[in-house]
Amino acid sequence: MIDAWWTMPCPVPDPVAAHAARARQDMLTKPPGSLGVLEDVAVWWAQRQGTDRPGIERVWISVFAADHGVAAEGVSAFPQAVTGEMVRNFAGGGAAISVLARHLGATLDVVQLGTVNDPGEIPGVHRAVIAPSTANFCEAPAMTQAQLAEAMRIGAERVALALDADADLFIGGEMGIANTTAATALACALLGVAPEDMVGAGTGLDAAGIARKCDVVQRALLCNSHADTPLERLRCLGGFEIAALAGACIAAAQARIPVLVDGFIVTVAALAAVRLNPGVCDWLCFSHKSRERGHARVLEAMQAQPLLDVGMRLGEASGAAVTVPLLRMACALHREMATFEQAGVSQA
Amino acid sequence: MIDAWWTMPCPVPDPVAAHAARARQDMLTKPPGSLGVLEDVAVWWAQRQGTDRPGIERVWISVFAADHGVAAEGVSAFPQAVTGEMVRNFAGGGAAISVLARHLGATLDVVQLGTVNDPGEIPGVHRAVIAPSTANFCEAPAMTQAQLAEAMRIGAERVALALDADADLFIGGEMGIANTTAATALACALLGVAPEDMVGAGTGLDAAGIARKCDVVQRALLCNSHADTPLERLRCLGGFEIAALAGACIAAAQARIPVLVDGFIVTVAALAAVRLNPGVCDWLCFSHKSRERGHARVLEAMQAQPLLDVGMRLGEASGAAVTVPLLRMACALHREMATFEQAGVSQA
Repeated sequence: MIDAWWTMPCPVPDPVAAHAARARQDMLTKPPGSLGVLEDVAVWWAQRQGTDRPGIERVWISVFAADHGVAAEGVSAFPQAVTGEMVRNFAGGGAAISVLARHLGATLDVVQLGTVNDPGEIPGVHRAVIAPSTANFCEAPAMTQAQLAEAMRIGAERVALALDADADLFIGGEMGIANTTAATALACALLGVAPEDMVGAGTGLDAAGIARKCDVVQRALLCNSHADTPLERLRCLGGFEIAALAGACIAAAQARIPVLVDGFIVTVAALAAVRLNPGVCDWLCFSHKSRERGHARVLEAMQAQPLLDVGMRLGEASGAAVTVPLLRMACALHREMATFEQAGVSQA
Repeated sequence: MIDAWWTMPCPVPDPVAAHAARARQDMLTKPPGSLGVLEDVAVWWAQRQGTDRPGIERVWISVFAADHGVAAEGVSAFPQAVTGEMVRNFAGGGAAISVLARHLGATLDVVQLGTVNDPGEIPGVHRAVIAPSTANFCEAPAMTQAQLAEAMRIGAERVALALDADADLFIGGEMGIANTTAATALACALLGVAPEDMVGAGTGLDAAGIARKCDVVQRALLCNSHADTPLERLRCLGGFEIAALAGACIAAAQARIPVLVDGFIVTVAALAAVRLNPGVCDWLCFSHKSRERGHARVLEAMQAQPLLDVGMRLGEASGAAVTVPLLRMACALHREMATFEQAGVSQA
């Protein structure tokens, strides 16, 4: 690697704004602490935005789609053609994230990084094909060094667009048949956890399917046991969309844009990002706990306490999207509630 | 009691619409079940609205404020004057629920049922004073029979206004210094639970305050041990706002308007409503789990699984309000997502 932009430092959140925001919370007309996590959310955003009046108006969502060579091992309940089909559905407005982005007034940026079933040029889809799919990482590293660098660069490029659009929040999402297998293998390698403690049902495997997936992850780890750095593990066991998400997390943190982390796959990409650049973790807000089995373990490793736990396991950034109104309301309460003094309300 | 309108039956939700909605969920472009609780929410609303395309546009929030004689026992961290002061703050737009109602585009109906510190006529507040406060239920029943009937009637009257406004959802909230003590005493009586297993910190009591509150609840239960029906327990241990909320839950269920239940106090009022009229429970949707200690116990008794758990304990309907966007998004996904066939996406 010639270019190591991803190791450049991330800014440190503003402790003065955090202090001012905490002081304001204690002056608002409510028992101190009674808004629970919403108070912490408001203070967290104040610290990132460097103001005691935080707000989340403009939300940017980039969904990265890509196929995985490991799909050949039969690790998904769905056929591989679905990745390309769903790219069309994202742009056509019929996917879950399409509905949610409309509902939130968010920008939905769909990025096609390479699918075996290539939908071609589609209005509303950014075509950035690296290859039809990664290699099957049971037999070879998923990506070449050039492919990894390109995927990470594309992730950073989408963040640059979000920055140009003055986004207050970056959300990354993913679509890729077999990508819970890739994320599981990568998480096992990054955390030193055995596959049997991490493998889950993905889009809906039965017990036999999960056992087969566990065996596939075992073989992937053996085949790529030479990968002993976070970057090499990301290259050998990740995917184009996972690398793009890791790059996006780093670029967003470097640009002071908070990242709302979606479910299992995005959390693993965020973990890789933090291993590549520890300062990234200060800019990550965790949205929800997915029903995918490995998510709890990865969240724990990052000391993350997500806001929602509503049994979602869809991906596409959908879990992050449904969390946005909670963040917006936390900031609105913080900005708009009256203080005890303003309202003439007696204190305890 | 002459009038027993609250015993009139509630309609049964529509099983045909529920079946059609569940079938639609399984046709949408996502792995079956992958939207988790959001799928159940959409089906629940479909069943209540009698359509397979449910939606929650118009939200009605009634906040009932009232004072409690038991405040004289020193059971709150805040002075009793705060109830009246907060009525002004609700109408002035500075309270948490004022901010949230604006954010949701909801109607906020503030109802003054009687406060020791009487703010007088205030624009935006419906004045329906029953008495300056209930009696101290450590010494006498909290309400007379006439007061109880009037409070319940006012609750039903607010629901009638919501119905006139074509509301899709009714939310009840409360404000009343010492009302966690009343709700705790009522919950103990309704559930046969000992005070030491139910009493919590309310707006912020320390350990000594909680011990005193526990003693007060003990004395209240002893003083009113003659109350052996749900109606008598509500009269003797409730409060004007708690009785109004119980009446509102019943009237909403009778009128086919789903109720989004807030935190501890509203849940106890809903429990009383269900004991008065079991059909009410079909129309209750539980929003959040409060940090107030007794809430988990009351939710469990109602077999309720609330959607959010974000450590709130403010009351005012605030926990229900922050849950509304999740309900709206669940319905939007259900209505607007493409089916596999529409989008040309392959199935598992």
